[in-house]
Amino acid sequence: MKELTSLALRTEGGRVLVLDQRRLPGTEVWVDGSSPEVMVELIRHLAVRGAPLIGITAAMSLAAHAERGASPEALERACTALRGARPTAVNLAWAMDRMRAALDRGGSSADLAREAEAIFEEDVRFCERMAEHGARLIGRGEGIITHCNTGGLVAAGIGTALGVIRRAHEQGKDPHVFVDETRPLLQGARLTTWELARLGIRHTLITDGAAAAVLSRGQAQRVLVGADRIARNGDFANKVGTYGLALAARHHRVPFHPVAPWSTVDLACATGKDIPIEERSPDEVRGYLATAWAPLATEVFNPAFDVTPAELVESLVLDRGVFGRDALARGLDRAAG
Amino acid sequence: MKELTSLALRTEGGRVLVLDQRRLPGTEVWVDGSSPEVMVELIRHLAVRGAPLIGITAAMSLAAHAERGASPEALERACTALRGARPTAVNLAWAMDRMRAALDRGGSSADLAREAEAIFEEDVRFCERMAEHGARLIGRGEGIITHCNTGGLVAAGIGTALGVIRRAHEQGKDPHVFVDETRPLLQGARLTTWELARLGIRHTLITDGAAAAVLSRGQAQRVLVGADRIARNGDFANKVGTYGLALAARHHRVPFHPVAPWSTVDLACATGKDIPIEERSPDEVRGYLATAWAPLATEVFNPAFDVTPAELVESLVLDRGVFGRDALARGLDRAAG
Repeated sequence: MKELTSLALRTEGGRVLVLDQRRLPGTEVWVDGSSPEVMVELIRHLAVRGAPLIGITAAMSLAAHAERGASPEALERACTALRGARPTAVNLAWAMDRMRAALDRGGSSADLAREAEAIFEEDVRFCERMAEHGARLIGRGEGIITHCNTGGLVAAGIGTALGVIRRAHEQGKDPHVFVDETRPLLQGARLTTWELARLGIRHTLITDGAAAAVLSRGQAQRVLVGADRIARNGDFANKVGTYGLALAARHHRVPFHPVAPWSTVDLACATGKDIPIEERSPDEVRGYLATAWAPLATEVFNPAFDVTPAELVESLVLDRGVFGRDALARGLDRAAG
Repeated sequence: MKELTSLALRTEGGRVLVLDQRRLPGTEVWVDGSSPEVMVELIRHLAVRGAPLIGITAAMSLAAHAERGASPEALERACTALRGARPTAVNLAWAMDRMRAALDRGGSSADLAREAEAIFEEDVRFCERMAEHGARLIGRGEGIITHCNTGGLVAAGIGTALGVIRRAHEQGKDPHVFVDETRPLLQGARLTTWELARLGIRHTLITDGAAAAVLSRGQAQRVLVGADRIARNGDFANKVGTYGLALAARHHRVPFHPVAPWSTVDLACATGKDIPIEERSPDEVRGYLATAWAPLATEVFNPAFDVTPAELVESLVLDRGVFGRDALARGLDRAAG
């Protein structure tokens, strides 16, 4: 396997190393995810996270497993286990389908490594294209609200929504980012602030509940978010809280754009109703045992994602271009297929 | 001073004791707020919180100060300090204005005690009236989203929005409450769950960002919240996150009701634009020193409240009755004055 490096993933001497994102921003620890069994746990527990990245790291882990001599049967089992690690982001299934196809063609370990490397390298190019397309939309000095984390930590390249903001910053447009903290796991507070500080981009952290107040004060002119799965009609799943943010943006006539690579589009989903939504542990919302802040018996509803209907999308930024409401109304298979 | 008791406030041997709400639900600690200087800090740091309660406890503290022989000048100074402890909830200013008027009439310490007791006892009755008016609106088995904490912890009586839900529960309507955790200080997760569990009312804790998903799934038929200051036209300030919740409710045609005593109405504010909004410490959002989860240099915007315009209110539940959009359009001074 080639030696490849991104912000949260690197390959080195046949090993797949991932930055443990649970421990950011305080501590930078790299863990070995070369074993698919370990990688499943790293993905499930969000050490590795972000729709594009979980597909890429899963592919890398499978290729490393092959290089260490795993049998075709073992690779098939690993492929299935990785595919099932998280249900909502379709990029994971998409990457595993590609690896499975290479395996079904009787591919050698070198073939599998090449496929995984291709998935990595394509993502770098996709990020560049999203950034170019998206940055054209952004005006000078705009306030931009974003949710969750969508930068270099979630991709092989510079990211999705945050990649667009980074490109606008590099173009001298001087954006000011309002970062939703993104409960329950605080990816905005922990990760997006960390990335923006490294990049020297102006930003202000807010609670998710304060985003509507930022809009009503006229402090933001645009909303950019990522996506975990996009249906044929443009409805999409993203981190819980995205839908409410989209409703607030619409009310204030502030354009709202999801940004994602084509691998996030699932043409098998006609609408958002077809997207499976992962529910995660009550502990994320209630706290755990001695650290719990709510009574431990409290029932919790903790969907990791919500679905935003296409009608709230001003335009969808893909590596294949920018698709407005008319294009979404025709269906993504026709508009961009 | 009479011996009076509510869920979070009691008077005992001339002392004013308050339940330290920062330590709930894990620990029940009562602290002595008989000294106005101490009470200012308890209010500022949210040991005592909730629009009606901070007015009541401030009045009690002033009366205790008078009983211990404070001079009229000292009482005036204490009155001013208490009035300024928090800027948004008008109930505090309203209670201090009443105490100040008693003082200006040359009132004795017994007169001040009677005024404080009247403020306490009136609140109990106001809560009962809000509960009666509001419970009539609620249908059997409704899912009700609420934000922050509005029960017995914020009043001398049974509370505002949560008082309404409690009454509906007592009437056998079996409501199911979706409790917004309410970042940054988690009053929903810590306090509302604790109150609802004590009352035996069904409830589910959610992140603030999940409320829109609950609405889109059809799990909630109503939204009930408190208020910290209501303008003449029905615009009102409440805990940050309320405005976004109101927008989501409107989109889903789910009726949205603030519930408050008349002392929350500020006829001097023509609209929500006139309501001062308290901004609190970045530490609430970012964490503090070793406990920080975001980089410590991160800039934070932390408004404690936001303003919801009257157009999003289905009806306003006051102790004086239920006021719909037509009444609000006429102005609260005419509709309910």
